[in-house]
Amino acid sequence: MPTFTVFKGSENGDIVKSTTTREVRPDEVLIKVTHSGVCGTDAHHRHRDIVLGHEGAGVIEQLGTQVTTLSVGDRVGWGYVHSSCGNCAECLTGKENLCAYNETFSRSNLDQGSFAHYGIWKASYIFKIPDSIAPEHAAPLMCGGATMFHVLRSFDIKPTDRVGVIGVGGLGHLAIQFASKMGCEVVVFSSTENKRKEATELGAKQFVAMQGKDELESTVGKQIKHLIVTTSSPPDWNKFLPIMAPGAVIYPVTVSYDELKLPYRVITRKELRVQGTLVSPRQTHREMIAFAGLHGIKPIIEEFPMSVEGIMDALERLNSGKMRYRGVLHV
Amino acid sequence: MPTFTVFKGSENGDIVKSTTTREVRPDEVLIKVTHSGVCGTDAHHRHRDIVLGHEGAGVIEQLGTQVTTLSVGDRVGWGYVHSSCGNCAECLTGKENLCAYNETFSRSNLDQGSFAHYGIWKASYIFKIPDSIAPEHAAPLMCGGATMFHVLRSFDIKPTDRVGVIGVGGLGHLAIQFASKMGCEVVVFSSTENKRKEATELGAKQFVAMQGKDELESTVGKQIKHLIVTTSSPPDWNKFLPIMAPGAVIYPVTVSYDELKLPYRVITRKELRVQGTLVSPRQTHREMIAFAGLHGIKPIIEEFPMSVEGIMDALERLNSGKMRYRGVLHV
Repeated sequence: MPTFTVFKGSENGDIVKSTTTREVRPDEVLIKVTHSGVCGTDAHHRHRDIVLGHEGAGVIEQLGTQVTTLSVGDRVGWGYVHSSCGNCAECLTGKENLCAYNETFSRSNLDQGSFAHYGIWKASYIFKIPDSIAPEHAAPLMCGGATMFHVLRSFDIKPTDRVGVIGVGGLGHLAIQFASKMGCEVVVFSSTENKRKEATELGAKQFVAMQGKDELESTVGKQIKHLIVTTSSPPDWNKFLPIMAPGAVIYPVTVSYDELKLPYRVITRKELRVQGTLVSPRQTHREMIAFAGLHGIKPIIEEFPMSVEGIMDALERLNSGKMRYRGVLHV
Repeated sequence: MPTFTVFKGSENGDIVKSTTTREVRPDEVLIKVTHSGVCGTDAHHRHRDIVLGHEGAGVIEQLGTQVTTLSVGDRVGWGYVHSSCGNCAECLTGKENLCAYNETFSRSNLDQGSFAHYGIWKASYIFKIPDSIAPEHAAPLMCGGATMFHVLRSFDIKPTDRVGVIGVGGLGHLAIQFASKMGCEVVVFSSTENKRKEATELGAKQFVAMQGKDELESTVGKQIKHLIVTTSSPPDWNKFLPIMAPGAVIYPVTVSYDELKLPYRVITRKELRVQGTLVSPRQTHREMIAFAGLHGIKPIIEEFPMSVEGIMDALERLNSGKMRYRGVLHV
């Protein structure tokens, strides 16, 4: 029975090194972790006694007796959802991310995660990584990348649409790349001029520094059809609602404990839509990997060692808002 | 040049009888009004010096020189939108209800409305009424009916969906009929048991009296996929969010000056959508008339004379919440 090193949160927020012993069940695989992304959700849970990390990349080292779709030596990754019931309306329509009985990071399998040297996971929730994607780039795609791609792929965004992205960070810098490669005209909203050059290189056609602006209409010009909110706190809707096109869609992507507050009148008058989105179903996740490989979409990363100190450093940098743009731990 | 009687609002809210003189332009028709619906939006504007009414039904009495699609004697109706630019993205994609330059009730053509003996309107915004629909029933369909049908027809509602309707009133009683004839399983939410029998006869499969209920889950059972809010004040979202299915859609139909307040967490976790809707584009309006005619969908109405007193009485009854369910003025 494999025994391996894992890294957990703790009551005071320190990262704790520990071990997990777990059998490889018939439908599971043992993955030797090489890299893990560091996500805001890990920071949310660092005060809990659970293994952190849900953006894993590595190599398969052992197959459960029933696994036929993967091989030892395969380069793979996994993300936020570990399993689902397979029997509900959501599962039967390819929306296992919404299955009420699914197993996910922070709710299930708390004795392991991608902040670890190994992981044992259901083969049906493991994604092959093509050679065109390096493992350190694959890791942040497993949640951050998949989540952004799902927003762009699974709802009504079309290549001819003007798409706004609020925030150039771990999620935003991936949204800009995916959307621009899909053909969308990407408008980036950032607090200062600081990230203009990088956002433009990533594919933004317009960059709006918000600081000191009382209104956005005169700067933005043509209205926005889809607005992806990747910042941790909600934007000032009084500024954004006037630049939304009729029938526009707002995607509040980041987890926030605030309330969405929008005037009913504005929602009605323009037939605006607010669309919640939650990570990604598996088929969309596969399409994301293929699309990223095809178009050379890469997260911009900062690497840290997979150790107590490395994880603490990465979480500190993330919390300080200085990470450019996604932290990656390497074993 | 036709001169005709119209009924206006006034600063103190009294209804005032007046006259309008207006030419029939080449692309317009003169309609002798026989009936008009009375809508909450009329009540909103009764303190303004404008002609009220935007649910008109009548008979064409004169054609502009260029009109070829209608004939004298045609039974017709008109609604909230009078005209649009014909040249913007919305107009070119059949969404003239969202045209930023369209002419609508309360913003344009303030010297006439359906609280009148005649109206002169653009022929391209006039709808023929089939013999299967009586004019007193046609009138409330021209805005209330079209608005509800648009919600059910233009977004993602499917015949196999479970659809919630909050409020059994002028809009709600039409939503119940349309949705049930579309095959949907309709769940009605009303404050008391009062309207159970009528809602059931209109097509509701489940009726939930909200009064005194701390939670709705145990009563409602299977979750709701689409929730149409037809009440003038927003519902208690803490009660409704738990009964929404994953990927469910909320339609706040009625005009409210409140703010929509929803916890971001809930929107995200279930991928909920809030979808604003605003009256109806013309093609959807035509389909509504055809559908109502085919399935015998009729507003339940209370009739009042087209006079100062009749209008005042109708508005009072509407404001008191006692109208069952749509007021109709007859000339």
